Amino acid sequence: MKILLSNDDSVFAKGIHALHEALQQHHEVTVIAPDRNCSGASNALSLHQPLRIQQLDNGFYSVNGTPSDCVHLGVNCFLEEEPDLVVSGINHGANLGDDVIYSGTVAAATEGRYMGLPAIAVSLASHEGNYFETAAQVVLDIISKLKHHPLPANQILNVNVPDIPYAELSGIKVTRQGRRHRAEGMQPSQDPFGRTIYWYGPAGAEQDASEGTDFHAIANGYCSVTPLDVDMTAHQSLEEMKDWLNK
Amino acid sequence: MKILLSNDDSVFAKGIHALHEALQQHHEVTVIAPDRNCSGASNALSLHQPLRIQQLDNGFYSVNGTPSDCVHLGVNCFLEEEPDLVVSGINHGANLGDDVIYSGTVAAATEGRYMGLPAIAVSLASHEGNYFETAAQVVLDIISKLKHHPLPANQILNVNVPDIPYAELSGIKVTRQGRRHRAEGMQPSQDPFGRTIYWYGPAGAEQDASEGTDFHAIANGYCSVTPLDVDMTAHQSLEEMKDWLNK
Amino acid sequence: MKILLSNDDSVFAKGIHALHEALQQHHEVTVIAPDRNCSGASNALSLHQPLRIQQLDNGFYSVNGTPSDCVHLGVNCFLEEEPDLVVSGINHGANLGDDVIYSGTVAAATEGRYMGLPAIAVSLASHEGNYFETAAQVVLDIISKLKHHPLPANQILNVNVPDIPYAELSGIKVTRQGRRHRAEGMQPSQDPFGRTIYWYGPAGAEQDASEGTDFHAIANGYCSVTPLDVDMTAHQSLEEMKDWLNK
Amino acid sequence: MKILLSNDDSVFAKGIHALHEALQQHHEVTVIAPDRNCSGASNALSLHQPLRIQQLDNGFYSVNGTPSDCVHLGVNCFLEEEPDLVVSGINHGANLGDDVIYSGTVAAATEGRYMGLPAIAVSLASHEGNYFETAAQVVLDIISKLKHHPLPANQILNVNVPDIPYAELSGIKVTRQGRRHRAEGMQPSQDPFGRTIYWYGPAGAEQDASEGTDFHAIANGYCSVTPLDVDMTAHQSLEEMKDWLNK
Repeated sequence: MKILLSNDDSVFAKGIHALHEALQQHHEVTVIAPDRNCSGASNALSLHQPLRIQQLDNGFYSVNGTPSDCVHLGVNCFLEEEPDLVVSGINHGANLGDDVIYSGTVAAATEGRYMGLPAIAVSLASHEGNYFETAAQVVLDIISKLKHHPLPANQILNVNVPDIPYAELSGIKVTRQGRRHRAEGMQPSQDPFGRTIYWYGPAGAEQDASEGTDFHAIANGYCSVTPLDVDMTAHQSLEEMKDWLNK
Repeated sequence: MKILLSNDDSVFAKGIHALHEALQQHHEVTVIAPDRNCSGASNALSLHQPLRIQQLDNGFYSVNGTPSDCVHLGVNCFLEEEPDLVVSGINHGANLGDDVIYSGTVAAATEGRYMGLPAIAVSLASHEGNYFETAAQVVLDIISKLKHHPLPANQILNVNVPDIPYAELSGIKVTRQGRRHRAEGMQPSQDPFGRTIYWYGPAGAEQDASEGTDFHAIANGYCSVTPLDVDMTAHQSLEEMKDWLNK
Repeated sequence: MKILLSNDDSVFAKGIHALHEALQQHHEVTVIAPDRNCSGASNALSLHQPLRIQQLDNGFYSVNGTPSDCVHLGVNCFLEEEPDLVVSGINHGANLGDDVIYSGTVAAATEGRYMGLPAIAVSLASHEGNYFETAAQVVLDIISKLKHHPLPANQILNVNVPDIPYAELSGIKVTRQGRRHRAEGMQPSQDPFGRTIYWYGPAGAEQDASEGTDFHAIANGYCSVTPLDVDMTAHQSLEEMKDWLNK
Repeated sequence: MKILLSNDDSVFAKGIHALHEALQQHHEVTVIAPDRNCSGASNALSLHQPLRIQQLDNGFYSVNGTPSDCVHLGVNCFLEEEPDLVVSGINHGANLGDDVIYSGTVAAATEGRYMGLPAIAVSLASHEGNYFETAAQVVLDIISKLKHHPLPANQILNVNVPDIPYAELSGIKVTRQGRRHRAEGMQPSQDPFGRTIYWYGPAGAEQDASEGTDFHAIANGYCSVTPLDVDMTAHQSLEEMKDWLNK
């Protein structure tokens, strides 16, 4: 299979190297990834300045842009043959619940979907990053299952994997997104010149981590696989809104 | 009502000034918006460098970040009192169909929703920008209806308004997102130093603009109001996936 | 006289507004300045992405680039008539000794000189910024003297003014650059995500602030005027180097 | 000798790899260079956001900043032992005449000088980059001569080398900076969204390329070595200015 591999932690991250290592044993893999850490980039596109791409010594391609830029440039222009699948990751750290909407890792997969390709985002649910090979193996497992069960045209898979040996995984759970508590308040601080600055802090704790959520799966040693719909319409509310909005 | 007003076209854009002008006649409005054009910023957060905020002569606040940064900083830290509503826009140009996932305008509203606040994104469906006051009036109309019909906790409204006089509007339609055709291929070009660069081009044409979509409403002179769900889980696929993923 | 006014603290800084206010009473002034704080930008040119310019409500022009970009774009392309003089400032804080080579304020003047125009950089030697009007008056004084004593083709003036009332100035001194001690060591710190980062700290203290230097003039209540040569060749060393380099 | 090697074309450029290859056969070399192309960065310092450094697979260090940042961070903080020499290059393309003040390659050397270290900037005078090994050998030659003829405390060497085999060099010339004609006018163009943008174009042609200049040396097949003085004071004008400025 021809796979376009990207991520948001940059072309230099350990996670994308581990995933490339595993995928290229079975597939034809091209890596196109950001030249800088783009965690939190969401689906941002670099509309205001031009993109540039360069090949590194290891054959990976590096782009001065976002994860979405990498996939768009690759599929729409740079690659001679269209890939069969877009894979994004392995992210350093989980993408659970509300994280999904901010994640550049998920966004690279979403961009693949918008280009008409099946797509998987994968994250290792720990910042220590001990068992990237576990996540890589899970991706291989899922790819072989997708052959017989293709994803619907509007969907991607968001996969989170516990940072433990593959043999110790409890299994795999199909999950819905949980919810985080609102993030801790930003606090003003000062740069060394005495000017006020504001930094984001770590994400909030789990608010909805009940059974069925991605949080719950990870907390219990399961891989979490959440199908995400790139159509954000709240279909369930359309009828009710028609009632009151036109009054 | 206390309103936090942001956008993605920057604190200097005509659209946000027009909306501020209309809103402040009935509400207490604080403007916090990006210092540069952030069209296409999606829900990006500036996690890798600190934010700075400054007040301009007209009282608006300007932030060296994204639309999501503006709303997060405002609600989570900067404003003394939490707003009752987040409004984002008026965007210069439509945000229809697939645009939604890339739009910084929609993202500012989404961020408000994640902070626990009702939120509206509004766009004027033309790049000429002749009738911002039409869109501003539509926002006022919707705000007064929301008093009696509060939005569900996971939803925001994505409002697109035709660029015509208010009196000529055909009405208001509750819509689902349409779909665009895949964007035109990026073409490589050269910078003045002869190096290869890639620019995004304009968005693709409509692929699904059938009745019921946001595209269809705008094309027929209606305001389009699409409820968006910030939970992206493809709930409809969970059961089926459980069958094949665990085999 | 037609004056192009720029700075490095951004088009929103108090210093450039104060200088514009004073200059425009006697001259025809166009302001083109960076849209963000560019302290420390030196003579950097934005060669890798395109520049954009917009006019603000107060008539000032704002550019997404460096001080050198602003002057280059203004003189080389944007202004219909070539200015007679480039003025840069009033910088918030002194530009003394080694500061000169890093200063975006000085660089805007240097760029003017490279375009063939006389140029003055002016800084208020305090971060409190109480008496910008003093520095503005000093610039007016110097401009009127330059009419009869034009600057040589390779030179610009670097003016530093004490932050005191104009009537209390001790006078004006022609000075040479002093020297700072090597800056305090950068110390590694951590961002809120636990990653190592490095910030510059304040500049080092004076190492050569002896009589005749810019430091000495300011410390004694004088304006400091240092002529700077944009040719950096160490002419005094050419002969001696020829001896040993070709052996 | 312990050498800190940097450049402005980025840690991935062919020129810095060629120079590292040659230097490390005789010296202990650490590479710290920008993660992106910083041509035109001049002496810019990243004062407004923190620096980050990472080690690549080949042992080189990559910094999200300018050439001056790389040298400052290396000497002031990151390296356990202070280097004996800072070398910057090999730049892809000449740094002659007016180029010097904009060059990030020269700036990295200047920063070394400000930290108290001897410093050499080296450029290959062609954009084809066929004979980087010639420039590397010239640097080795100069380093061995500097042992017996140390540079004055305010000076660095700006070396330009013709892009021809080492054996075909006409020799080495000590030169002064020539002058370029004012750059070609920027022309407004449009981005793909129809918005006006401005790009820099190639540098102007030679205006002063007479005998004794760096331009003249290169044009005649010689290496050009220009001593640059990091003190920009126009000492020759101080006395005359005192006369008229205080009247």
